[in-house]
Amino acid sequence: MEIPSFLPKRAALTPASLALVTETVSWTFKTLHDRAAKIASALHVLREGKGTRVACLVENVPETVPFIHACQYTETVAVLLNTRLSERELQWQINEANCCMIVYTEGLADVAIRISKAIKLEAKCIDQLANEEDASSFFSPRAIDLKTPATIMFTSGTTGSPKGVLLTWRNHYFSAINASFQAPLSSAHTWLTSLPLYHVSGFSSLIKSALFGNAIYLSKRFDSEAVWRLIQTKEISHISVVTKMLSDLLSHSEGEKVPSSLLHVLLGGGPVSASVLQKAEKLGWPISVSYGLTETASQAVSSAIADGPPQGSSGKAMSMNELYILNNDGKEASVLEPGEIFIKGPTVTEGYINSSVVIDNRFGFPTGDIGYLDEKQFLFVLDRRSDLLISGGENVYPAEIEHVLEDHPDVVSCGVTKKSDDKWGEVPVAYIVFLEGKTVRSSKLRDWCGLSLATYKIPKEFREIKDLPRNSTGKLQRHRLVGLPSKELED
Amino acid sequence: MEIPSFLPKRAALTPASLALVTETVSWTFKTLHDRAAKIASALHVLREGKGTRVACLVENVPETVPFIHACQYTETVAVLLNTRLSERELQWQINEANCCMIVYTEGLADVAIRISKAIKLEAKCIDQLANEEDASSFFSPRAIDLKTPATIMFTSGTTGSPKGVLLTWRNHYFSAINASFQAPLSSAHTWLTSLPLYHVSGFSSLIKSALFGNAIYLSKRFDSEAVWRLIQTKEISHISVVTKMLSDLLSHSEGEKVPSSLLHVLLGGGPVSASVLQKAEKLGWPISVSYGLTETASQAVSSAIADGPPQGSSGKAMSMNELYILNNDGKEASVLEPGEIFIKGPTVTEGYINSSVVIDNRFGFPTGDIGYLDEKQFLFVLDRRSDLLISGGENVYPAEIEHVLEDHPDVVSCGVTKKSDDKWGEVPVAYIVFLEGKTVRSSKLRDWCGLSLATYKIPKEFREIKDLPRNSTGKLQRHRLVGLPSKELED
Repeated sequence: MEIPSFLPKRAALTPASLALVTETVSWTFKTLHDRAAKIASALHVLREGKGTRVACLVENVPETVPFIHACQYTETVAVLLNTRLSERELQWQINEANCCMIVYTEGLADVAIRISKAIKLEAKCIDQLANEEDASSFFSPRAIDLKTPATIMFTSGTTGSPKGVLLTWRNHYFSAINASFQAPLSSAHTWLTSLPLYHVSGFSSLIKSALFGNAIYLSKRFDSEAVWRLIQTKEISHISVVTKMLSDLLSHSEGEKVPSSLLHVLLGGGPVSASVLQKAEKLGWPISVSYGLTETASQAVSSAIADGPPQGSSGKAMSMNELYILNNDGKEASVLEPGEIFIKGPTVTEGYINSSVVIDNRFGFPTGDIGYLDEKQFLFVLDRRSDLLISGGENVYPAEIEHVLEDHPDVVSCGVTKKSDDKWGEVPVAYIVFLEGKTVRSSKLRDWCGLSLATYKIPKEFREIKDLPRNSTGKLQRHRLVGLPSKELED
Repeated sequence: MEIPSFLPKRAALTPASLALVTETVSWTFKTLHDRAAKIASALHVLREGKGTRVACLVENVPETVPFIHACQYTETVAVLLNTRLSERELQWQINEANCCMIVYTEGLADVAIRISKAIKLEAKCIDQLANEEDASSFFSPRAIDLKTPATIMFTSGTTGSPKGVLLTWRNHYFSAINASFQAPLSSAHTWLTSLPLYHVSGFSSLIKSALFGNAIYLSKRFDSEAVWRLIQTKEISHISVVTKMLSDLLSHSEGEKVPSSLLHVLLGGGPVSASVLQKAEKLGWPISVSYGLTETASQAVSSAIADGPPQGSSGKAMSMNELYILNNDGKEASVLEPGEIFIKGPTVTEGYINSSVVIDNRFGFPTGDIGYLDEKQFLFVLDRRSDLLISGGENVYPAEIEHVLEDHPDVVSCGVTKKSDDKWGEVPVAYIVFLEGKTVRSSKLRDWCGLSLATYKIPKEFREIKDLPRNSTGKLQRHRLVGLPSKELED
């Protein structure tokens, strides 16, 4: 199904409305579209045909925004890389996604150029693209077929090897429609985006803006003082945050009233601290909790769309989504019976790249998370899948860390689990079985991990254990690690 | 593509919110859904399988609303009949649509039963359906495939023989999405519907309500005094009207302020009187003009979505629509060059029943209307197709009236054209060539027309003319009728 291209349509409807504000720029939709059309014109020549994939090493800076839209104009698939990953991880993902070039923003030039040389792939700065000769002409198709692939973002599977989630423009479109059912958006509103644009949470704010005409305040990183100032001066109506950001905001604003111009604080990205939530609500913050995954193109369950959500619930399945709980027999669970959460609807990915599709025809995507529905269809998430922890809004997969530690010459085997942390929500803890007679200090293991892993994946605690708990088929039982005798390694 | 069923989803999200208010009822979404599920349960047994068509003779009364939704639950196609048509016209349309039964509301029992007997088709009152034995069980599927046929509404083609426009749930869904881009809707809003539910304009308000959760105030007919009272008591935020209704409202409210709770007055249904529009805008009415057809599932062009629409423009193509102007060579017209208006997008019908599809792959639906785009892409409608006039919001096709008059024994031939009218916008005028030596009085011709035609189609003026103006191939040139000598017939 074809519908009008998102940003060209918006630029036709409200050309003079504010589209993007940062510390350095203030662009209308017309300006944004003109820039996107120029980048698209250059991209059209460079990439090798529709559907080719471009590795994106991009920061939350202005030029990233027209580039994302230029990908729609040219039907280029943006492989959005987590810039916090190690270079080794980035190289692996770029190869895995079979990218034909690398595009980067100025601040990431060094790493992009190093990777470009290492894997022999052309790298272009977005600023360069906008100034190519071909960028003198405009490139702006009127319509987009919604089934066109849009983005690839990596998440890790249970095996610890990252899988690229392919999302189409249909997925992103209906995710935006979902959001508009939750909290109407128009040119009267302003959305603050400080979550990374390479994550679906940050990315989705750009799509909403193009479709609904609200401006985006784009921050390079989350600065609670600056955000609180923008809220106080009534410049922000909508913001999406993770627990840590909300908690920082509360510290900065304590005792002060939240202005009524702040309409919607969307809280996502993993487990929510009940105490932070209660404090925020007591102070009148318009919080809505949500639940979603990269595979569902952002939130699929939300508290803001339903009558009176009870405490502890994540809300109800959003307007475009159905939600199923399947018990151990693979049947729909009864009310209050826990089971695996399945999500269905046009926001759900059609699958991973280089990996078989796992979507169930009837029930949709199996999240691996455990939860139950109450009699009013409110979802309560009991536990994220045991092979996942979420630290500061980033997904961390124990298996990936285990693999790295097991490569260490003195390590026999390793199990990683999580512990809760006031600052980050959850942090990884490693339990290690060493070769007989061997042991390694924590500081050395941290360095070892740092060679292969993003900083946020490095365990905050390393413990020695005699044997790993396994079930009868030899499968690691991570939930039993904490209960067994172990001792913390010296630093 | 499947998405959650409209009303069941809404009833799950906000069961306690107000869904429907009339003089006699006040129903929440839960109540409305429970009624729809009961009717669906009876309908499920009665109709002969998915996709079968049911003739609907329905008024703007509460029971019509759950019935419409029950059609979605059971995948029954609602053939929505204009209740102002003559019985002869109704019978023809019911046969043409190949309906398997007639469903009616209490006030139309007489006509429904007469037609039922005449064409030997079962007729059921909606109240009966809701009380069938099978209605003890609930029937409520969770999802609807958007390609499922939803409604058939008749419009007349250039030949004067009515054509049934088939609209799918996709068409109606995207029409609602279009509207939400124009004016955000939520449970905080209330939409007054006094336009007939059998027209796409009234019908579409029910879909918006189920999707976005706003309440509907349903009026059996438009009563300007009652509407103005509801506006003054701040109970109405949105209303859709045709010119005559707006003009009546202005008479009732003159000198009084429009409360800020009235957010959106959607003006549609044919030519707009510039003087009425100017008067309304001067008094601060939040008017948005629009342009659309049954074939585009209601408005496709609107002034409310764009920056600063210039006077006389109908606005810009809505978010889900593209608009093309084709000149006489079938090429895209340049800026300010008039041509035929084409509309494209997911709201556009896939075609007529029993008639070939006319949708152009590249440009969409040819409206037959003439207009141009200015340099900012604002549409100016210059002229409705010469074979159509719009009287009090109802489409009237000259050819249909001509056929009826030409059946009169004393009439040789006839041409019908329009003249403007302060009350109705436009009214039909008939130019008649009589058999030599014969003539017929206006009052007799009115009676003759009344036997076959709805009252609003009967010409307001009958004139005798010597010969009809025709082009070289013998085609009637209606636009020349006014300029030729003719004389009004005696009453």
